[in-house]
Amino acid sequence: MARFLKNREPVKGQSPGALVFVGTRKTDEIDIRVIDYDDHHLTDQAMVDIQDTLHYKTSESVTWININGLHDVDTIGRIGNAFDLHSLVMEDILNTGQRPKIDDYDDYLFIVLKMIRFDRQTGMVKNEQLSLVVGERFILTFQERPGDVFEPVRERIRRQKSRLRAGGTDYLAYALMDTVVENYISVIEHIGEQIEDLEEEILSDHDKKVMEKINRFKRETSYLKKSIRPAREAIFQLLRLESDLIHEKTLFFFKDLEDLIIHATEAIDTYRDLLTDQLNIYNSVTANKMNDIMKVLTIFAAIFIPLTFIAGIYGTNFDYLPELRYKYSYFIFWGVLVVIAGALLGYFKKKKWF
Amino acid sequence: MARFLKNREPVKGQSPGALVFVGTRKTDEIDIRVIDYDDHHLTDQAMVDIQDTLHYKTSESVTWININGLHDVDTIGRIGNAFDLHSLVMEDILNTGQRPKIDDYDDYLFIVLKMIRFDRQTGMVKNEQLSLVVGERFILTFQERPGDVFEPVRERIRRQKSRLRAGGTDYLAYALMDTVVENYISVIEHIGEQIEDLEEEILSDHDKKVMEKINRFKRETSYLKKSIRPAREAIFQLLRLESDLIHEKTLFFFKDLEDLIIHATEAIDTYRDLLTDQLNIYNSVTANKMNDIMKVLTIFAAIFIPLTFIAGIYGTNFDYLPELRYKYSYFIFWGVLVVIAGALLGYFKKKKWF
Amino acid sequence: MARFLKNREPVKGQSPGALVFVGTRKTDEIDIRVIDYDDHHLTDQAMVDIQDTLHYKTSESVTWININGLHDVDTIGRIGNAFDLHSLVMEDILNTGQRPKIDDYDDYLFIVLKMIRFDRQTGMVKNEQLSLVVGERFILTFQERPGDVFEPVRERIRRQKSRLRAGGTDYLAYALMDTVVENYISVIEHIGEQIEDLEEEILSDHDKKVMEKINRFKRETSYLKKSIRPAREAIFQLLRLESDLIHEKTLFFFKDLEDLIIHATEAIDTYRDLLTDQLNIYNSVTANKMNDIMKVLTIFAAIFIPLTFIAGIYGTNFDYLPELRYKYSYFIFWGVLVVIAGALLGYFKKKKWF
Amino acid sequence: MARFLKNREPVKGQSPGALVFVGTRKTDEIDIRVIDYDDHHLTDQAMVDIQDTLHYKTSESVTWININGLHDVDTIGRIGNAFDLHSLVMEDILNTGQRPKIDDYDDYLFIVLKMIRFDRQTGMVKNEQLSLVVGERFILTFQERPGDVFEPVRERIRRQKSRLRAGGTDYLAYALMDTVVENYISVIEHIGEQIEDLEEEILSDHDKKVMEKINRFKRETSYLKKSIRPAREAIFQLLRLESDLIHEKTLFFFKDLEDLIIHATEAIDTYRDLLTDQLNIYNSVTANKMNDIMKVLTIFAAIFIPLTFIAGIYGTNFDYLPELRYKYSYFIFWGVLVVIAGALLGYFKKKKWF
Amino acid sequence: MARFLKNREPVKGQSPGALVFVGTRKTDEIDIRVIDYDDHHLTDQAMVDIQDTLHYKTSESVTWININGLHDVDTIGRIGNAFDLHSLVMEDILNTGQRPKIDDYDDYLFIVLKMIRFDRQTGMVKNEQLSLVVGERFILTFQERPGDVFEPVRERIRRQKSRLRAGGTDYLAYALMDTVVENYISVIEHIGEQIEDLEEEILSDHDKKVMEKINRFKRETSYLKKSIRPAREAIFQLLRLESDLIHEKTLFFFKDLEDLIIHATEAIDTYRDLLTDQLNIYNSVTANKMNDIMKVLTIFAAIFIPLTFIAGIYGTNFDYLPELRYKYSYFIFWGVLVVIAGALLGYFKKKKWF
Repeated sequence: MARFLKNREPVKGQSPGALVFVGTRKTDEIDIRVIDYDDHHLTDQAMVDIQDTLHYKTSESVTWININGLHDVDTIGRIGNAFDLHSLVMEDILNTGQRPKIDDYDDYLFIVLKMIRFDRQTGMVKNEQLSLVVGERFILTFQERPGDVFEPVRERIRRQKSRLRAGGTDYLAYALMDTVVENYISVIEHIGEQIEDLEEEILSDHDKKVMEKINRFKRETSYLKKSIRPAREAIFQLLRLESDLIHEKTLFFFKDLEDLIIHATEAIDTYRDLLTDQLNIYNSVTANKMNDIMKVLTIFAAIFIPLTFIAGIYGTNFDYLPELRYKYSYFIFWGVLVVIAGALLGYFKKKKWF
Repeated sequence: MARFLKNREPVKGQSPGALVFVGTRKTDEIDIRVIDYDDHHLTDQAMVDIQDTLHYKTSESVTWININGLHDVDTIGRIGNAFDLHSLVMEDILNTGQRPKIDDYDDYLFIVLKMIRFDRQTGMVKNEQLSLVVGERFILTFQERPGDVFEPVRERIRRQKSRLRAGGTDYLAYALMDTVVENYISVIEHIGEQIEDLEEEILSDHDKKVMEKINRFKRETSYLKKSIRPAREAIFQLLRLESDLIHEKTLFFFKDLEDLIIHATEAIDTYRDLLTDQLNIYNSVTANKMNDIMKVLTIFAAIFIPLTFIAGIYGTNFDYLPELRYKYSYFIFWGVLVVIAGALLGYFKKKKWF
Repeated sequence: MARFLKNREPVKGQSPGALVFVGTRKTDEIDIRVIDYDDHHLTDQAMVDIQDTLHYKTSESVTWININGLHDVDTIGRIGNAFDLHSLVMEDILNTGQRPKIDDYDDYLFIVLKMIRFDRQTGMVKNEQLSLVVGERFILTFQERPGDVFEPVRERIRRQKSRLRAGGTDYLAYALMDTVVENYISVIEHIGEQIEDLEEEILSDHDKKVMEKINRFKRETSYLKKSIRPAREAIFQLLRLESDLIHEKTLFFFKDLEDLIIHATEAIDTYRDLLTDQLNIYNSVTANKMNDIMKVLTIFAAIFIPLTFIAGIYGTNFDYLPELRYKYSYFIFWGVLVVIAGALLGYFKKKKWF
Repeated sequence: MARFLKNREPVKGQSPGALVFVGTRKTDEIDIRVIDYDDHHLTDQAMVDIQDTLHYKTSESVTWININGLHDVDTIGRIGNAFDLHSLVMEDILNTGQRPKIDDYDDYLFIVLKMIRFDRQTGMVKNEQLSLVVGERFILTFQERPGDVFEPVRERIRRQKSRLRAGGTDYLAYALMDTVVENYISVIEHIGEQIEDLEEEILSDHDKKVMEKINRFKRETSYLKKSIRPAREAIFQLLRLESDLIHEKTLFFFKDLEDLIIHATEAIDTYRDLLTDQLNIYNSVTANKMNDIMKVLTIFAAIFIPLTFIAGIYGTNFDYLPELRYKYSYFIFWGVLVVIAGALLGYFKKKKWF
Repeated sequence: MARFLKNREPVKGQSPGALVFVGTRKTDEIDIRVIDYDDHHLTDQAMVDIQDTLHYKTSESVTWININGLHDVDTIGRIGNAFDLHSLVMEDILNTGQRPKIDDYDDYLFIVLKMIRFDRQTGMVKNEQLSLVVGERFILTFQERPGDVFEPVRERIRRQKSRLRAGGTDYLAYALMDTVVENYISVIEHIGEQIEDLEEEILSDHDKKVMEKINRFKRETSYLKKSIRPAREAIFQLLRLESDLIHEKTLFFFKDLEDLIIHATEAIDTYRDLLTDQLNIYNSVTANKMNDIMKVLTIFAAIFIPLTFIAGIYGTNFDYLPELRYKYSYFIFWGVLVVIAGALLGYFKKKKWF
């Protein structure tokens, strides 16, 4: 499976208007929840019929409709029509292989982000697409499957005095995006810790496992980078949009969000550099080990091969071999062997081979 | 053959006005098809004589003339004259080694793209030049050879209610270019899958084949990049042209196309990084294997060479060699051998060599 | 511990307004010191109650309040309220994993920097967060723990004729930041010296230790870069802010500070390049050593293995082996051995193997 | 010789006004040719005296004076004076180590380019400096030596109906520069073909020759890049000069020239990447070969060294060695040898060593 | 010594106004020379008292005061006061670890450059700081020690008709900076020649010396780059300053200077790339040599180890070993050995191992 170019089914030449879900179905039912609030009141309910929510579109209160599950193209389509979304927006929401971005459709902003998750079992980073439609008085969020990522935000909405209750849709959008980006940081931190620990391992337990780990982390940080880098661009653009939908005072918060995501991308780049350095060190350690192995071999071979040769000499069966007759020959022979072995050992010692 | 600088025949100093076909003839006959449509009517016919189509140039309906095959310089030249194309445009259409680009000639836009195809037999990416001339009421497309790439677009034109029928030449240009770019994505996805699968292979079946594959994919992604990168620049320029030929509301679609091609180029870069990492891993695996081989050699040599030497000692024919006479010598001799071998084995075990 | 993404505790979805200290407590008590000065007078005292200092906020004299220790969230919160700091500023002050930056809040500038220290014992670079709030008539500085880094600045304030006494808060901010950046230079210089000395070591005492050193310095320079690079951006922004808080004539000093920090970052990059080169050289030296080892092995093996074979021939017990009977065989045999050994030695000598 | 910083003789502190030829004299005589043309007439003659050509400077017709050979400083100086060239222009014309560039002197443009040639004998790229002075009604071209590079341009001038005859000096400048750039393309194509062929060679005939070729091509593409990259910048600047000397309608042609030279530089970069990849592959192949060699060695050593040891055991001369006496010992001995050898072979087979 | 971050003594927190000489004293006495000239007159004298030169500050003639030696802080300080130099300028002049730069102080420009020298004995590049203060009617130059670098400029000033005599301080500044940059070129050329010669050496006399040379040149080009790169930026800024001190017509000369220094930095980058390539080639050559050594070892071992084994078989002392009894055994034995050796040789020959 091409994980780095995910789920993009080529719909060559088909009308861009035809709605098709492109991706892996990650949930069975579609689950829609509507939260409507202002300073004074708060309602939080599951949506049954899109018609019931239409009045929210223009009401003064802030309305947040969260849709979990994208496979029910009809329902999604009806929501899109109800809120007058552009056909390209509908298409992008349904295509989970979208690149993070922000588009300004005057009446609303359309934001695509990736939510990141580290799967401990496979050791792989998984992502899920989050689409936000930020209007003057409403926010739509589309997720691939149910999850409680945004529960803390809901918690804050429930607290009557929270800044969220006082703010508009732009502040809610900030709070949601901040949740996503904080999550990036925590995933990077989790992976980063393991990467930093590798260093020790390379020098102590040098084996193939370590190399596979380095490789795996390289791949996963590539994957992270691919999701987070464009998100950074999108937040950068958002700050410079001059859209009426983002109020002056919320800009400080988005500026802070930008700092955070820059921090995230820089950390990824630093970790990738660390991994490159670690692979280099690993290779140097491998080469050093090779040298050590060869030294052992060479010392054994260089000492015993000549000795064996000398023993071979006196194993020959020449009729006339004068040394064999001499009484102390055998002892002299041993002496010579010891001297040769000692000289060679001294030579290697001097070369600091052991 | 210089595949990376294709078919460019140096026409040093010759008048840029002289029309010459530069490339490989990929079809025998030239095949021209004229589609003319608006909301209400649609005609689709083969072109016999360029004169029959001249009235389309100014008629209100959208006219799409598709030319397959470029070797018939005369016919191409007549079409060029009929539509008042600049001599440089004519030259570029006929030179299939052109770099993707967009030129604004006020009355029309001239766009060059590469159509990409993955040839499964050779495992190589092939490209074919597509030139588009986008006028107010007509589009000319020039391909190197017949192919049904644009059939889905024609299909959509035939459906009376489609957006294509309601749009102008700019929307048709978008639909055609979108088809080309969607095709990039599907080729990259195809290659990407194979690249991602390589990783497994490097660690399990490490052999020369894998390295050749890495090499081949590097070359093919280079080739892809060379075609797609400039196309991205061209689409970027198109969005910022402020030409009257591109209407405001079509810009959203071209913006979407830009996102798509950025996605494509980023995926290529990610895959190239993956390949570089894979070659590094491959080399580490090779070095590790070398270490393993050397360990086997060293263990055998270090154990048996000293033993052989000892056996050699007692194979000598010295007249006076006291140990030979002693009754249990042979058994002591075996004992010594076993002890030495055991000690060495223990030493290598401690070093974790096996 | 993820040192490269330090102390950032994900506070997913929590209200950004809730003050929490994020970091390692590095001091036990919070220590606050207030210096107030103008041309004529100077007071320097420990702060007991924030209420006592409120009048400084608007007085004409320059007031510098330095806070050491961040764990006492309440006190910090009261100071923040007293000086009307934005909630995001308060949060950033308390989060010691902040990326260096500058934010313009019209009434004051908020600057985050890292103070760098080289810990000789661990051989590691440590950093500590410094937050500056620069108002029209006051400066707040927040450090993680007590330290005498700014003592020289205080010394200069005490001298009545110093430029500091005549300058405003902007010049004091410059003096403080200059102290921090000069410190970067001295840490880089300290590490740089050791890096430059490594070169010699690689060529003379080539061993695993050197490689570990190269590795360690790479990591530490990464760490330095991570702290200093964003500080450079921040100073760059500060110079282009056009804030009323920075006076024209102080700009020259900030320009000088920019030159200094550019110098620092360039030096880090140069040292990183040096380290990369050194690792390459190290690997080349390792490979050369391997060649030398293999030459020794090959010379011994190539000379003695054939000789041993020849000795083996005449150690066979064939009944009919004519040479054994001949009287001078043994001497001829030796002659042959010497000739062979000499020829091989000559061959290796010619190949410049020794 | 420092080929990459060619012929630049430091003229430290000397007056920039003193004319000195800096370079290698490549021709013996200076050869000057004057072509003067407009729609109706054409003259083409060798220049004898610069005075004869002075009236061309202001005449309505286009005058092209081509000077081959730069060593005759006096003549060059007289030409410079006759056309009021700036002293810096004169200096640059005479210094053949100039970097390609364009300077706008209001009355004329001064353009320096390198003409590239592939010398098949040495396998090296050679370059030659071409300086163009483009005035309102005249063009001066200075080459280091005679050559027929511009003959095709002259040919086109001779054809009465050609666009050249109708165009001004700007179009002639375009035609000349186009000739030079087309030449870059053909040299790159020539080298590129050889580089692409290398790939095959690395995998089939891996030897030192291939590595030297890779090295040579790297150097030559460096050299090409050094000449062509700045030329690209120069053409880029020329397009944005807004000089009266370049007419609106000629801009299309220069735009086309820019596309061409971008194509050239991109091709060089692609080929350099290919070469880097090829060196990596070469090194992987080398490492693989090493593994193969070591496997052969290890198999032989691991099998025969133990066997030799066993033979050595029974070559000992112990008085009491029971096996020697037994009748079938020799056959059992052979059996044991075969079993050991077989087991080891099986082991290596299982490891896929052969 | 940290050569890459030279002589910067951290003056943490000290008042930036206190003048301290930071650097190595390179001369004993301070040597000051005053040249004053216009079209008509010229005086050239040693300066005794700064008071004598004060009238030059405002006189119409151009005055060039050159100060050699920086350790006499008092004298330098007096000069600074006499010419109203900013305290930061004074500090920078005295700190020889300054990064090349240009600062515009309205009344004068302050330029810092490095003068480069190749020390043949140590094979190292040395630099020396040159500070220029360019006022309307005067130029001050500060060098670390006496040297005749600027003698040619003085020579040109002495010639009455030279452009220098007619130009203002801006042209003199150009002439001085041009001298410095021409010097860069000649140092780069000198090093470049040696680098280009290395290539040959790597392939012919491959040894450790070559690697050390590559390493040394890498370090020295790093050092060069560190001095020249910022100087290029400074000259770039100077061209875009729009200072009244630089006249329109002198800009052409500074433009030429910019071309020259771009040429210099590009040459350095090219040489650094060459060196990287050379190290790669060196490593490939090392690996190839290793292969060659291993082939020799393997051929010897693979041929003689089996032969020795066979000889060992017939050296055993089994009572019943039928072959030993047969008359022609010894000759058959030899035959078998020759056949085996021949087969193995043939095998290695086929593998192209020799």
